[in-house]
Amino acid sequence: MADDMGAAKERKILVVVDESEESMNALSWCLKNVLVSTSSSTDTLILLYVKPPRVVYSALDGTCRTANSRHFTTLQSLISLYLFDCVIEKAKRMCREQFQDVKVETMIKHGDPRDFICQIVEKLHVDMLVMGSHGYGVIKRAFLGSVSNHCAQNVKCPILIVKRPKSASGSK
Amino acid sequence: MADDMGAAKERKILVVVDESEESMNALSWCLKNVLVSTSSSTDTLILLYVKPPRVVYSALDGTCRTANSRHFTTLQSLISLYLFDCVIEKAKRMCREQFQDVKVETMIKHGDPRDFICQIVEKLHVDMLVMGSHGYGVIKRAFLGSVSNHCAQNVKCPILIVKRPKSASGSK
Repeated sequence: MADDMGAAKERKILVVVDESEESMNALSWCLKNVLVSTSSSTDTLILLYVKPPRVVYSALDGTCRTANSRHFTTLQSLISLYLFDCVIEKAKRMCREQFQDVKVETMIKHGDPRDFICQIVEKLHVDMLVMGSHGYGVIKRAFLGSVSNHCAQNVKCPILIVKRPKSASGSK
Repeated sequence: MADDMGAAKERKILVVVDESEESMNALSWCLKNVLVSTSSSTDTLILLYVKPPRVVYSALDGTCRTANSRHFTTLQSLISLYLFDCVIEKAKRMCREQFQDVKVETMIKHGDPRDFICQIVEKLHVDMLVMGSHGYGVIKRAFLGSVSNHCAQNVKCPILIVKRPKSASGSK
């Protein structure tokens, strides 16, 4: 399916977005270098925002834990919805500015991004997965492992991993 | 550099090719979905063929070794040159058939592809690296580790990993 598709065929391109600069850079790169390709508006861009489980650092025994209390869950949901709105609004603005005709769909999920991304790619018959390489911050990455590495090994469709901008890497 | 480039800018796209169906599929996917994008001929496609060290399976102690005898080295060079010609000719034909205007350059290297690919990406200021996910066969992969995984973690530019065609995966 994904392997023999031509450029004129409608493509479903899933872009993983979050609060990080890396994910916005990945979206921007995709818009400039992949979506502009067809000079038609047959592509559908699916913006996926996955909010990973909230990682709580316990001061008592020094371990990381996933908060599952009622208060945390409620707070987490509210924050996630707020962040989702901000991130998606920013991503949509970027799409409009760079490529007005593209169809944009949005999705939000809560849980381990590694599982959700692979499941959605499969379920929606995505033709291409696009993601940054350093999403989710240092602590969450240590907890969740590298999401992009996991996806690169497990999704069946082509995957484009866009690295951290040079200016950003230099400042780290 | 790679992070803020527009589609109109000249892009250097490095495609790793070898005898495998995966690498030709990656090239084909790139031609159909990325190179066609600019509707200009400002892209340069660099076809890189890296011949990894010959892996010899020792019947005596069951370990894999890199052959470094004179005979093996000479034979290996001759075979590599022959394979290089075949692979590059096939790849160039694919480029001409799908995208006549693209500028194509070719390179051959002997050694560990993980090192060479990363070095060349850096040296030539490549804007995008394209590769299949399952090159080099089962035994060589066990010996060399996953080349695409290594590159995904180490190159600075965006990397597109194109998976094995569904028909081929199904037959495995």
